[in-house]
Amino acid sequence: MNTREEALALDAADPLAPLRAQFALSPDTLYLNGNSLGVPPAAAAQRAQVVIAAEWGEGLIRSWNTAGWFTLTKRLGNKLAPLIGAAHNEVVVTDSISVNLFKLLGAALRLQKQRDPKRRVIVAERGDFPNDLYIAQGLISQFDGAYELRLIDDPSELPAALQPDTAVAMLTHVNYRNGAMHDMAALTQLIHQKGALVLWDLAHSAGAVPVDLNGVGADGAVGCTYKYLNGGPGAPGFVWVPHRLQNAFEQPLSGWWGHRAVFTMNPVYEPDDGIGRFLCGTQPIVSMALIECGLDVFLQTDMQAVRDKSLALTDLFIEQVEARCDEFPLRLVTPREHAQRGSQLSFTHPHGYEVMQALIARGVIGDYREPQVLRFGFTPLYTRYADVWDAVEALRDVLVNETWRAAEFAARVAVT
Amino acid sequence: MNTREEALALDAADPLAPLRAQFALSPDTLYLNGNSLGVPPAAAAQRAQVVIAAEWGEGLIRSWNTAGWFTLTKRLGNKLAPLIGAAHNEVVVTDSISVNLFKLLGAALRLQKQRDPKRRVIVAERGDFPNDLYIAQGLISQFDGAYELRLIDDPSELPAALQPDTAVAMLTHVNYRNGAMHDMAALTQLIHQKGALVLWDLAHSAGAVPVDLNGVGADGAVGCTYKYLNGGPGAPGFVWVPHRLQNAFEQPLSGWWGHRAVFTMNPVYEPDDGIGRFLCGTQPIVSMALIECGLDVFLQTDMQAVRDKSLALTDLFIEQVEARCDEFPLRLVTPREHAQRGSQLSFTHPHGYEVMQALIARGVIGDYREPQVLRFGFTPLYTRYADVWDAVEALRDVLVNETWRAAEFAARVAVT
Repeated sequence: MNTREEALALDAADPLAPLRAQFALSPDTLYLNGNSLGVPPAAAAQRAQVVIAAEWGEGLIRSWNTAGWFTLTKRLGNKLAPLIGAAHNEVVVTDSISVNLFKLLGAALRLQKQRDPKRRVIVAERGDFPNDLYIAQGLISQFDGAYELRLIDDPSELPAALQPDTAVAMLTHVNYRNGAMHDMAALTQLIHQKGALVLWDLAHSAGAVPVDLNGVGADGAVGCTYKYLNGGPGAPGFVWVPHRLQNAFEQPLSGWWGHRAVFTMNPVYEPDDGIGRFLCGTQPIVSMALIECGLDVFLQTDMQAVRDKSLALTDLFIEQVEARCDEFPLRLVTPREHAQRGSQLSFTHPHGYEVMQALIARGVIGDYREPQVLRFGFTPLYTRYADVWDAVEALRDVLVNETWRAAEFAARVAVT
Repeated sequence: MNTREEALALDAADPLAPLRAQFALSPDTLYLNGNSLGVPPAAAAQRAQVVIAAEWGEGLIRSWNTAGWFTLTKRLGNKLAPLIGAAHNEVVVTDSISVNLFKLLGAALRLQKQRDPKRRVIVAERGDFPNDLYIAQGLISQFDGAYELRLIDDPSELPAALQPDTAVAMLTHVNYRNGAMHDMAALTQLIHQKGALVLWDLAHSAGAVPVDLNGVGADGAVGCTYKYLNGGPGAPGFVWVPHRLQNAFEQPLSGWWGHRAVFTMNPVYEPDDGIGRFLCGTQPIVSMALIECGLDVFLQTDMQAVRDKSLALTDLFIEQVEARCDEFPLRLVTPREHAQRGSQLSFTHPHGYEVMQALIARGVIGDYREPQVLRFGFTPLYTRYADVWDAVEALRDVLVNETWRAAEFAARVAVT
């Protein structure tokens, strides 16, 4: 592509282009960070008003029933299910992804202990999002060394790491740092052949790439709703368990919402049949309700259309960076092969932090991850081909004019 | 009191009366259920718009820093602290009360195991809110019988239950069912004398009665923000740990928000110093932000003023029920002694469920708990003396005319 007009022509022909109007995104913001926080669906502000003024204010306590608050975890889960290849009543939207991973990992270790007590190892990647490793560490720290977290540096080490002592492999489908995507079907098969369960973290997959959890036969998954699903800052995460395992899994966070008879007030916990047993306590309804606004946009398209545009956008970004920023020390660390790429591109630059700050100051919002990584997320529901063109132009400007060397861009501040 | 005019006179003289205007409560709703779900502060709707349109929509990912999202857990905790006798940086608002109880109980068992491995028993009340028992059951179910949950039927059994094998006593300050309040100072002292730690559940205390956690020397507490604190349906709970124990407690839900260096992306979990280690994952910001609207109302009064009015309201309700409903089988199950009463009154009636449904249909909103219990919560920030008069009048009408016998009031529906 040689001109911005060509990008505009792609936008004019894009079947997903009309969906952008369903997001409250300022026309002069060039947002390539939907992999961290999606933008507000236009419906969210109004939905919040209804929840606060009508449901909370007028309905008051009655709204737990009359406004469907009490069943929102399951209703949202069922709406999300088709995006990840899940069946009806296999997903609940609840708690944080961290808490959900703890539940799932705890349940999986317990099931494996019953099946084969020598399976006491969790296999994971050292380069995984550290939070997942922290959750595994905290879980097993309760057991005085009875369990082990075995970290591999490269997926190629997986066959060797999966030993007869392995209980669970915990893997993230699309890596947060470099945007590389695993072959979920092949790895699930491999892990099962070795007698382990496999749990997938879909934080960077749900709404970003097609996922077929039941098709690959995975054993559990967690994900978040505030990235590609546009559910709102810190909106509750989700947990998926296939029907075949739901009643075999006993998770440790056994709160009343997971009880088979919540309101009988029996002092003994009895887990609900089905996915309900993965609930714990009362959920933040205002934040929960807004998740539906994001999911409703996905109902108007399908994940293959989203994927097609995602690959076209990322292909174009790579092409344009290579064409226009070739003289600078930018290195693509995301795989070029489509089958190994999520919906994010990552480049290293020796001054990655400063370059990203300078880009943001210029209105192109991506983010930065240690060490040296510039991340650009592409959300086909609202990202345009012209955005790609403009973002690369801004990047070139920052690099050519070395605006990133300004002192204001050197001070580090935390961003989730 | 013999006339409604006397109640109106009390309202006219009530120093808290002006605060009612700060709540979005319809004039024709008589709401006595703030012990389950508080009403919206008038500021909440506007605050939600700012968070959604300006912070999320305009600020986007930058708002984690620029809008203070990332530090909201601690800022809200510090604002809440004075209501419960906590010091600065001893409280975080985060996750659900259930999840927080799991963290705290897990940390307490672990500390006791280090100090004295034979202490393996959790003492609790069979009549406690079942969720707390469920959380304890789920936690210890991980350890194959190494721990025990010892239930007592009456607080008088506590001295006998606290044996040299007891690690922790887990008690709820004000009981959800009968509104009875424990003597927190005396029980904390007793439990410490027996070498156990004591964790308090403040679900029905925070914002309802004065609490002095540091004054009594408790070891940990959890509470919720959606009842008397008016934080919004299912809004995140809080956890308190005194400075002296913060770094001795290692809690199992070790997510990245509790790491001492969140953004270094180190694969090894290292807990933050201080209360920060009780954080886990990303929080639901829209729901979180609304909690501040409720706390801001408390800044305009103090817990002694709230308590004085609460006792006056509950005294009046008891007096009026006894004066006007004496011929019906209503039995007060909340203690008459002020020192043993929270901010809720409970009465049993053989047809308690139906009576409450009929009352709600008549615009007086309380709630029902198995078995036979009608609950009435009194929130001094917005409940008027005239509301008490009118509620008892409605109750008398329902009982005299037996409107509760209508078929429509028999069908049970779940209410949290």
